[in-house]
Amino acid sequence: MNFKDRKTIRKYQQRDVSEELLNQLLTDAMRAATMGNIQLYSVVVTRDEERKRQLAPLHFNQPMATEAPVVLTFCADFNRFTQWCEQRKADPGYDNFLSFINAASDTLLFTQAFCTLAEEAGLGTCYLGTTVYNPLGIIDLLQLPRLTFPIATITVGYPDEDPAQTDRLPLTAIVHNEHYHNYTPADIDIHYIYKESLEENKHFVEVNQKETLAQVFTDCRYTRRDNEAMSEGMLAALKKQGFL
Amino acid sequence: MNFKDRKTIRKYQQRDVSEELLNQLLTDAMRAATMGNIQLYSVVVTRDEERKRQLAPLHFNQPMATEAPVVLTFCADFNRFTQWCEQRKADPGYDNFLSFINAASDTLLFTQAFCTLAEEAGLGTCYLGTTVYNPLGIIDLLQLPRLTFPIATITVGYPDEDPAQTDRLPLTAIVHNEHYHNYTPADIDIHYIYKESLEENKHFVEVNQKETLAQVFTDCRYTRRDNEAMSEGMLAALKKQGFL
Repeated sequence: MNFKDRKTIRKYQQRDVSEELLNQLLTDAMRAATMGNIQLYSVVVTRDEERKRQLAPLHFNQPMATEAPVVLTFCADFNRFTQWCEQRKADPGYDNFLSFINAASDTLLFTQAFCTLAEEAGLGTCYLGTTVYNPLGIIDLLQLPRLTFPIATITVGYPDEDPAQTDRLPLTAIVHNEHYHNYTPADIDIHYIYKESLEENKHFVEVNQKETLAQVFTDCRYTRRDNEAMSEGMLAALKKQGFL
Repeated sequence: MNFKDRKTIRKYQQRDVSEELLNQLLTDAMRAATMGNIQLYSVVVTRDEERKRQLAPLHFNQPMATEAPVVLTFCADFNRFTQWCEQRKADPGYDNFLSFINAASDTLLFTQAFCTLAEEAGLGTCYLGTTVYNPLGIIDLLQLPRLTFPIATITVGYPDEDPAQTDRLPLTAIVHNEHYHNYTPADIDIHYIYKESLEENKHFVEVNQKETLAQVFTDCRYTRRDNEAMSEGMLAALKKQGFL
């Protein structure tokens, strides 16, 4: 499959993903760039039905979390490296915010490399952004020690749907030559006009009884109140895990 | 090229990367998963020699930063979306830490998707982790407004070297079944024995007059002192950009 044709897959066949294939994909994905070749990540593989049921509410009960044969929780991990340092008479200084950012970056590069390879192999994936909404619950359930942190959850399986591709902004909205050129009101209109014109988006405005599509995002999907509460949760979890 | 054969490329031919190819790769990379289909990223393209010279010290004068035909700074971006909301009578609540994490995640998935596609097209890439070491300098130079943040820098060009692949930890060091299984001292020995056995790593221990390879990392490459100072810099930059 060509990457430009990819889609998020939320429905999966009742067919297992073999451990052999999964391990091959993860092994290949480890070729992604990593800070100082340290590999600041771990991945927890969930196949057990009972554990999926326990994970599900932490992902707002999105059906993929229980219906996918495999759920992968990609974690930032400075624990393994720190243990190695301590065992080798070295003084590790990775209990700080920069180290979290470094490990989270490594983890996300590894995650995306895995998703691309999995899709090339005929699997479908869905990225659950909810991982950072409920980090403390996931930390508990997956027994994540100090200096680790859940960053991304990917559900994986053989596709049982073929959805339409979603829209994207025009590239001109994303690319800045030589320096950031801040947007004029006219730029914003041009970049968002296609998104706003889509029937499905007009439908969301209507059913939510809003005036604009932007209000669907700010009032229903990603509210200030939720974001602020979850920011506190993230910062508390970073403290608990030793990164702040 | 197979992803499992990829290598970081730091030396590039004196050959430009066409705008057409670059734009195609960025367009395709936008197919990576993105939170709520919002696309919380921008990319600043640096081709100008003078601007590369200004960027270089912010990347510790790594030669790639000036020698690559194209330098891409991938930025977390909640500015564009926030402006759209404000222009559409919506109240955006994205000046908080969770929103930074969401935007940084989107940005890194986009970054890795771009790198994979660029390498498939015959280009070489190098990930400069230094971006988060000096965010304030980069913010200034690239004129990054509030609610944007530089996350990753990628140098791109046609390869002019064919280096050996670097080592990786065994997959068993990375994968945890059902929950995190913390490492015993024996596990750590097993996972790191290959890395420690490599001649080039023994050489690093020797030239740095250290007792162990871990000490090369903790005392020379990634010191507690640097990490703590750069953590403060990151947090100050997050405040300045409106995310904390």
